[in-house]
Amino acid sequence: MKLVRYGRPGKEKPGLIDDEGKLRDLSGVIDDIGPEQLSDKAIKKLSKIPHADLPLVRGNPRMGVPVAKVGKFIGIGLNYYDHAEEMGLPIPKEPIVFMKATTCLSGADDPVMLPKGSKKTDWEVELGIIIGTRARYVSEKDAEKHIAGYCVINDLSEREYQFEQGSQWDKGKGCDTFGPVGPWLVTRDEVYQVNKLDLYLELNGKRMQTGSTENMIFSVAQIVSYLSQYMTLEPGDVIATGTPPGVGNARKPKRFLKKGDFLRLGIAGLGEQQQDVIAYQQY
Amino acid sequence: MKLVRYGRPGKEKPGLIDDEGKLRDLSGVIDDIGPEQLSDKAIKKLSKIPHADLPLVRGNPRMGVPVAKVGKFIGIGLNYYDHAEEMGLPIPKEPIVFMKATTCLSGADDPVMLPKGSKKTDWEVELGIIIGTRARYVSEKDAEKHIAGYCVINDLSEREYQFEQGSQWDKGKGCDTFGPVGPWLVTRDEVYQVNKLDLYLELNGKRMQTGSTENMIFSVAQIVSYLSQYMTLEPGDVIATGTPPGVGNARKPKRFLKKGDFLRLGIAGLGEQQQDVIAYQQY
Repeated sequence: MKLVRYGRPGKEKPGLIDDEGKLRDLSGVIDDIGPEQLSDKAIKKLSKIPHADLPLVRGNPRMGVPVAKVGKFIGIGLNYYDHAEEMGLPIPKEPIVFMKATTCLSGADDPVMLPKGSKKTDWEVELGIIIGTRARYVSEKDAEKHIAGYCVINDLSEREYQFEQGSQWDKGKGCDTFGPVGPWLVTRDEVYQVNKLDLYLELNGKRMQTGSTENMIFSVAQIVSYLSQYMTLEPGDVIATGTPPGVGNARKPKRFLKKGDFLRLGIAGLGEQQQDVIAYQQY
Repeated sequence: MKLVRYGRPGKEKPGLIDDEGKLRDLSGVIDDIGPEQLSDKAIKKLSKIPHADLPLVRGNPRMGVPVAKVGKFIGIGLNYYDHAEEMGLPIPKEPIVFMKATTCLSGADDPVMLPKGSKKTDWEVELGIIIGTRARYVSEKDAEKHIAGYCVINDLSEREYQFEQGSQWDKGKGCDTFGPVGPWLVTRDEVYQVNKLDLYLELNGKRMQTGSTENMIFSVAQIVSYLSQYMTLEPGDVIATGTPPGVGNARKPKRFLKKGDFLRLGIAGLGEQQQDVIAYQQY
């Protein structure tokens, strides 16, 4: 199932994308797609509704973050062999964990706003994990059961804030609009080979990132199990699992985002995001 | 005013501590102390209620985190001159920013649980800031207006997870029970000299940390202004502003927390926390 939250920011309604790719309204069935809707049981219940009976939504509404009330937005750094190589950095021995401010969460096609004075805003297409049930010290074997589904994430990063203003990355990871998530939450049962998904990102129509989750250093199950040793993962928590090669900071010459740029990024089976890059403006 | 949330975990009621130090119930007036109760206007409204008219609460209930629905739990690293000195580290040129998982939030006197297998869990008494109104690119001059109040925080940290398992600190900062906050949210108007407050921490009755916020490298106003350039601060966000000297990791020999240890820590005017240290147990 492809779950979505559609409509204006802060006023999103729950919906789903049916087998024909049409958007249908779920607001007669559930209030929202929040933590309590993400268990296997709750998802199964939704999947049993005859989708053809749900009202079709007209037009082409905005897609919000496909899950409400995200408690934590966690990132994994340097998790692709080929990306570590392009950065000239050693393969991490264990996952590098950082956090994105939840205030950076943004819809799949919402504009990306450059922070005031930013010179080094960069892109990162990533596979996202959305937690379905509480996970605490879970084994790799059991990890997948705690996952509601997957999504596309653009883990936008300001490289000056991340690398040149002290040792900790979080400062460059959580600026407003730096966390487009979606368009869909694709439930786990629909993603057959999560460790073999193609990812891509284009800047102004030119391919920048091409990758496959089979080059991940730590798998989805390893990441969930690992994180759950350090913090309790709650339903609705979102994990960005690292980016394949081709980020602006690794190009020669480096290329960072400018006002007027256009990003298109996606993952096979998980949908596509499109973002206009805009200058800082008071908001 | 001293605002509190008292009662069992997840079932806390709003209350306040009156001028005689007595706990009074606010649940007849407001549902909870959440983000919407933290503006100057909302706080003023509460302060105008004759406190003697509010029901007294009997007994000695547990104190929960004094604000509900915390969106972000942000930490500032190495923010005291004398602490940087004891660590033999250079004075940071700008604030070091990290994030604590919101799942680590804990009541002031709740037990501190050592993570499974942890050998290097450490204490850090800190002044906490609780944001009252949205702050985005605010100047130092205007920063204070966005603060609802202050509190005591124990910024517990697992040093092996923080320093020996990769470059990023967040892994060692957000374990469950690693964020006791409270007992009170003391509103801004009651804290006359926030940059001149005494802090202390005792382990098993022995003084470990003694400090004053006058040794902070970056002041409260500087921190709020600085952070607001990188992320939007929302009402209810909590900021731990760094710790004075005397952490276990800087002692010779090093001293980390063990099962059966007892912590007592506080800040002049902001109250005291007391925590039993317990071994990991399934929960």
